[in-house]
Amino acid sequence: MENMVKKWDSKVNSASDISVTARGTLSMLMQHLNEEDKRPVIKLSQGDPAAFPCFRTSHAAEEAVINALRSAKYNCYAPFVGIPPARRAVAEYLSRDLPYKLSPDDVYITSGSAQAMEIILSVLAGPGANILLPRPGFANYEARCAFSNLEVRHYDLLPEKGWEVDLDGVKSLGDENTIAIVIINPGNPCGNVFSYEHLKKIAETAIELGLLVVADEVYGHLTFGCTPFVPMAVFGSSIPIITLGSISKRWSVTGWRLGWLVTCDPTGTLQKSRIVECINSSLKIISNPVTFIQGALPQILDLEKTNSDYFSISTSLLKEATEILCDKIKEIPGITCPTKPEGSVFAMVKLDFSQLEDIDDDMDFCVKLAKEESVIVLPGVIVGLKNWLRISFATDPKYLENGLERVKSFCKKHFKKHFY
Amino acid sequence: MENMVKKWDSKVNSASDISVTARGTLSMLMQHLNEEDKRPVIKLSQGDPAAFPCFRTSHAAEEAVINALRSAKYNCYAPFVGIPPARRAVAEYLSRDLPYKLSPDDVYITSGSAQAMEIILSVLAGPGANILLPRPGFANYEARCAFSNLEVRHYDLLPEKGWEVDLDGVKSLGDENTIAIVIINPGNPCGNVFSYEHLKKIAETAIELGLLVVADEVYGHLTFGCTPFVPMAVFGSSIPIITLGSISKRWSVTGWRLGWLVTCDPTGTLQKSRIVECINSSLKIISNPVTFIQGALPQILDLEKTNSDYFSISTSLLKEATEILCDKIKEIPGITCPTKPEGSVFAMVKLDFSQLEDIDDDMDFCVKLAKEESVIVLPGVIVGLKNWLRISFATDPKYLENGLERVKSFCKKHFKKHFY
Ligand SMILES: Cc1ncc(COP(=O)(O)O)c(C=O)c1O
Ligand SMILES: Cc1ncc(COP(=O)(O)O)c(C=O)c1O
Repeated sequence: MENMVKKWDSKVNSASDISVTARGTLSMLMQHLNEEDKRPVIKLSQGDPAAFPCFRTSHAAEEAVINALRSAKYNCYAPFVGIPPARRAVAEYLSRDLPYKLSPDDVYITSGSAQAMEIILSVLAGPGANILLPRPGFANYEARCAFSNLEVRHYDLLPEKGWEVDLDGVKSLGDENTIAIVIINPGNPCGNVFSYEHLKKIAETAIELGLLVVADEVYGHLTFGCTPFVPMAVFGSSIPIITLGSISKRWSVTGWRLGWLVTCDPTGTLQKSRIVECINSSLKIISNPVTFIQGALPQILDLEKTNSDYFSISTSLLKEATEILCDKIKEIPGITCPTKPEGSVFAMVKLDFSQLEDIDDDMDFCVKLAKEESVIVLPGVIVGLKNWLRISFATDPKYLENGLERVKSFCKKHFKKHFY
Repeated sequence: MENMVKKWDSKVNSASDISVTARGTLSMLMQHLNEEDKRPVIKLSQGDPAAFPCFRTSHAAEEAVINALRSAKYNCYAPFVGIPPARRAVAEYLSRDLPYKLSPDDVYITSGSAQAMEIILSVLAGPGANILLPRPGFANYEARCAFSNLEVRHYDLLPEKGWEVDLDGVKSLGDENTIAIVIINPGNPCGNVFSYEHLKKIAETAIELGLLVVADEVYGHLTFGCTPFVPMAVFGSSIPIITLGSISKRWSVTGWRLGWLVTCDPTGTLQKSRIVECINSSLKIISNPVTFIQGALPQILDLEKTNSDYFSISTSLLKEATEILCDKIKEIPGITCPTKPEGSVFAMVKLDFSQLEDIDDDMDFCVKLAKEESVIVLPGVIVGLKNWLRISFATDPKYLENGLERVKSFCKKHFKKHFY
């Protein structure tokens, strides 16, 4: 059998062997945990509010799913674009914030925005094409681009400007082969929220360069600072926008795997393109989202029906968590948080190696933190910024506080002696 | 904006534009329906028992999902390989029929077997590799291979031998670049069930050619003839088998999107291969199945808990449907069913153009049948056999009977005059 395996191994698709993803790194870090440490592990790594009882989704959303299931109308396969009531519900939900009305035909129901991302990146991966991604960003984009053989060019988000897009950088990166730019707003990993004015500039730059805009708004409406959430699609009349979203974060149901890809295209520009054709084709050959959860979507997205308290409670929790985060970080030597998060569930914090010793870099920091304090955070290098850390605050505020307390002990222990 | 669209269109990935799938063909056929015909449309096209109340899944399975949801333990993201209790449950469920015990680590939980198929085909699509697929078969394999740029070679299933694999054909097709052979058992589209002896010969052929065997057993245990279902993995000690399966068909919950990819590899041969590594990597960059349905899986797969009547009722219904099918077909001029189905939910029936007029081929037959009788069946050409039809009998038996009655009127109308 040895020979057989050798033959197979020589034939496998190396593009399917993506090594660097957040998930991969986190499971590697878990292996460094010290079993002797009897304290519970604290994970400040995943953007998963649903893992914490305090974020438990609204009763109405759960009942909507149960009713859909009990009706036995949704045990069967769904149409590949999604069931019509679900498409209509998403069109209405998103149109609330737009100066025009989306049609249900603009909406494709997907298995989380992760699958929407898969689809659009594979569609845009024609020969020679390249795409602009944010740095720091969400490593799954890089992984999916590698998988689809789509060349990535990174534009910077500027910490000194509250993580706004480096538009000059964008202009210097784009060429005739640049098909699209991805923006993530509210931002993973920076917790920033783009202002209307900044989004307008992004739209203008995209028009200038002839770029399709892919707006990842999986954290849409999860804002709690001064800047309100504005969907990129408000500029849809000037340039078509592909919006990706899901119920994962706002409803705290990441495990329900229900999202959407929406062509926000009031001028009908995209309708005539092969892009829409290819999106349709792609949906025929993938596994679609669960039908009964689609059946529940009209109830879930009906904001009057979904316990309206739910949203205010969960955003207050996130706001409280950011206060704790920023306050605590100030007490920790060797770490700073240059911008207080206003949205999403992540913050980027910077390591200052002039103050820390015995630590090589952010990866080493995270490995040792796991080992010594049983705390898991994501090294910045995984999201494109070496010597930063990505910290999730989609946790119980108390849990975050405990975690940061341990980070404080860790940093004190590794603080350069001559600083005392 | 015209220019922008032109630019984008020149950059899209044509591999994402798969035109021929069963789903695509069926929606095309739907467009040919005659709106003046006030009778309900009869679809004998989809392998979707869940669309019919008589196949409604067991109460126990529904309650298991509701309990998992209500527990609020499963609203969060799942590990990319699946949650441990779900992996364990699948390992135990499949081990019941094997001479060895599968480990939970052999099991990857997927969003239906469709996603298991996506994963394995993309992993096996290394440069120059080719794969052997059955003809007739399940068109999604061809579509996914085209998408992944994996060369397809078709081996025949032999109608005169009850749709057994043409093993001589297999031997002449395989070369040093052939990485795997896919078998579908019980069969879509032929409704055949391979005997133990035939599976053994397939295993021997695979060993001789050094092929990995991918066994699509999504219709596993849906048998109602003389040949019992034997999982390919019984030969796992001689050659590693990758088994694909799901709860879709046996539990009649196609819309729940819960399946598995399992490395049946008691000798540990695959464990050492890059294939397992790549399967793991692939799972990190796709959208995983719904967590709370995974949470319900141990209950669902516990055959004592799932209303045991449920299986006998649904297989009796399928058996009844095959009787109707074979009896009715005998009354219809121009069509024959050479082999009575013993498993799955499909049969292949043959068109005899020496008896039919005004009809060019199977596609034309299906278009005209939709137009004139509001009945949808799949043209054989889509599954690889021109001038055959694929008929699904995963329907209410009465519904099937009505559909076939219409097919009879249609064939009588198009029967060659001189035959009367
Ligand atoms: C920026 C971003 N996009 C997409 C996703 C995928 O989310 P989902 O598939 O749960 O909708 C995530 C998840 O963390 C994310 O952070
Ligand atoms: C042969 C075969 N394989 C795989 C599938 C996919 O099934 P699912 O993804 O629902 O498990 C089907 C569905 O009809 C099928 O017929």
